[in-house]
Amino acid sequence: RHFHFCKLPGRVMGIRLLRFTSVVIVVLLLVAGALTALLPTVKDDKMPNLRREPKAQSQSALDSFTLIMQTYNRTDLLLKLLNHYQAIPHLHKVIVVWNNIGEKIPEEMWNSLGPHPVPVVFKVQTVNRMRNRLQNFPELETKAVLMMDDDTLVSAHDLAFAFSVWQQFPEHIVGFVPRKHISTPSGVYSYGSFELQNPGFGNGDQYSMVLIGAAFFHSGYLEDFQRQPEAVYALIDETQNCDDIAMNFLVAKHTGKPSGVFVKPVDIRNLEKDTNSGYSGMWHRAEHLLQRSYCVNKLVNIYDGMPLKYSNIMISQFGFPNYANHKNKM
Amino acid sequence: RHFHFCKLPGRVMGIRLLRFTSVVIVVLLLVAGALTALLPTVKDDKMPNLRREPKAQSQSALDSFTLIMQTYNRTDLLLKLLNHYQAIPHLHKVIVVWNNIGEKIPEEMWNSLGPHPVPVVFKVQTVNRMRNRLQNFPELETKAVLMMDDDTLVSAHDLAFAFSVWQQFPEHIVGFVPRKHISTPSGVYSYGSFELQNPGFGNGDQYSMVLIGAAFFHSGYLEDFQRQPEAVYALIDETQNCDDIAMNFLVAKHTGKPSGVFVKPVDIRNLEKDTNSGYSGMWHRAEHLLQRSYCVNKLVNIYDGMPLKYSNIMISQFGFPNYANHKNKM
Repeated sequence: RHFHFCKLPGRVMGIRLLRFTSVVIVVLLLVAGALTALLPTVKDDKMPNLRREPKAQSQSALDSFTLIMQTYNRTDLLLKLLNHYQAIPHLHKVIVVWNNIGEKIPEEMWNSLGPHPVPVVFKVQTVNRMRNRLQNFPELETKAVLMMDDDTLVSAHDLAFAFSVWQQFPEHIVGFVPRKHISTPSGVYSYGSFELQNPGFGNGDQYSMVLIGAAFFHSGYLEDFQRQPEAVYALIDETQNCDDIAMNFLVAKHTGKPSGVFVKPVDIRNLEKDTNSGYSGMWHRAEHLLQRSYCVNKLVNIYDGMPLKYSNIMISQFGFPNYANHKNKM
Repeated sequence: RHFHFCKLPGRVMGIRLLRFTSVVIVVLLLVAGALTALLPTVKDDKMPNLRREPKAQSQSALDSFTLIMQTYNRTDLLLKLLNHYQAIPHLHKVIVVWNNIGEKIPEEMWNSLGPHPVPVVFKVQTVNRMRNRLQNFPELETKAVLMMDDDTLVSAHDLAFAFSVWQQFPEHIVGFVPRKHISTPSGVYSYGSFELQNPGFGNGDQYSMVLIGAAFFHSGYLEDFQRQPEAVYALIDETQNCDDIAMNFLVAKHTGKPSGVFVKPVDIRNLEKDTNSGYSGMWHRAEHLLQRSYCVNKLVNIYDGMPLKYSNIMISQFGFPNYANHKNKM
């Protein structure tokens, strides 16, 4: 006897089953492979995990930083500061954002006074905008950015230490100038510093922002900044202010944590009064602080919520400058 | 015609293939499931990621800590300290490790002076061992342990702040007493504090240990401690010392990072001289510090390497006690 159906179907079914199962098995192996690829690996991704030792994959890119300094109408201060900052340890390159529209960059003079420890690039701008310094400059090769105002002098010791702290907290803005927002019963936010009431979370004060005019942060955030709502750029352009508040909003949204880590500076100075230009910074405008409170509230509207979070961590350098600065009465 | 072979084999082969492929598919699905389980998830695992906001899964277990205080021959100090520590915010329970062998615990007196803010458990020991405090006590319900020496008074403010810091660095020993090792050209290590030479990594000093006699750490490390080489227990028992150095080795090995995070205390006091017992602590023994250097070298042998890493991060509380303690000259 034969079962006619078993001949062709049996073999065909056998072959079809074989094909089918091969396909299924291949698909499942691909799925397994994809899942394996998703397993956590130690790799040099864009936003590295906190406190991970910097990998030696690209020594220069991870162990050095790029100074970005925007300048307007204070070339004498700029040049004074460049002499200082060009020699900071672990500096890779300086990018000067030249907001002196129509004015020649001092390149000739700079070159005539060479050689210099690191390359300095003058980026000529077409419009004098506060947010010019937040472009994603192609010259930027390092993971870390040090952003400094063109009237701020921070000691090399402070910078070297703060850079090492940033390497342990690369998701955060690690810097020297803490600020905070407070909320009020009306729901309107106010911006300020220690002169404002404490936010009321336990003892002491809190900060919710670290200003980028004297801080390290990850270069990836410059990339992120290019992808913000138009209203953010409009706000910064309208006020010629608040780019730093916007960056803190961006970082806080990205991490879900306090945007900044405050490193208490030993030696930080404002050289503003030393300029011959007679130009004094934007923060002297009568409306400056009110504008910043205004910006906080506008940004909450734009981002549909308040992403800033409080921190009360203040970091200092153990045993420096005083080798026993941690001594206690025990 | 029939192909005799196709009948039975075809159907049987079909069924066998079916069974085989079912098994393969099930196995691959299990593998895929296992890989999925290995993907990083936000779960309340034993060693949570750094700086993750504490989940509200078990409010009490994550937001409170257990004080473990070992005591020997200083019951007057113990009781004085218990009055202070029993009222610390976020305290869940106190475990007193009673090293007064053969002596009755002051339970009657304790109860007669109740009620008390939190449960206090007296764990009677059979042998007076330094490492008794490093048992994995079943009464321990919280993720965090606060370990205090029975002669050390730390203010509630310091403890509340340090606990909040621990919650941001739960892998680390977060405490108030930093120490370091230094290596010498001979390869022999030495133990000490700021009076020793700086290890020479940039400016200032470094610490590589935070002593557990005034520190927060994850209760999981008590569990880990039970699984150490016998030689570690022998060393601690031989010296009646160095349990804290051993814990720092354990934590550093576990994390691959500096074991401790130093929080600078505002108010820490040693009440040793206030005791009526006339008993002064182990650290007054002539050989105490030499013993600790000895322990460092022994532990390096036992663990076949030096796992301790240096840190120079010193954490203070922003705006406390002085609301403007972060002010700078800018």
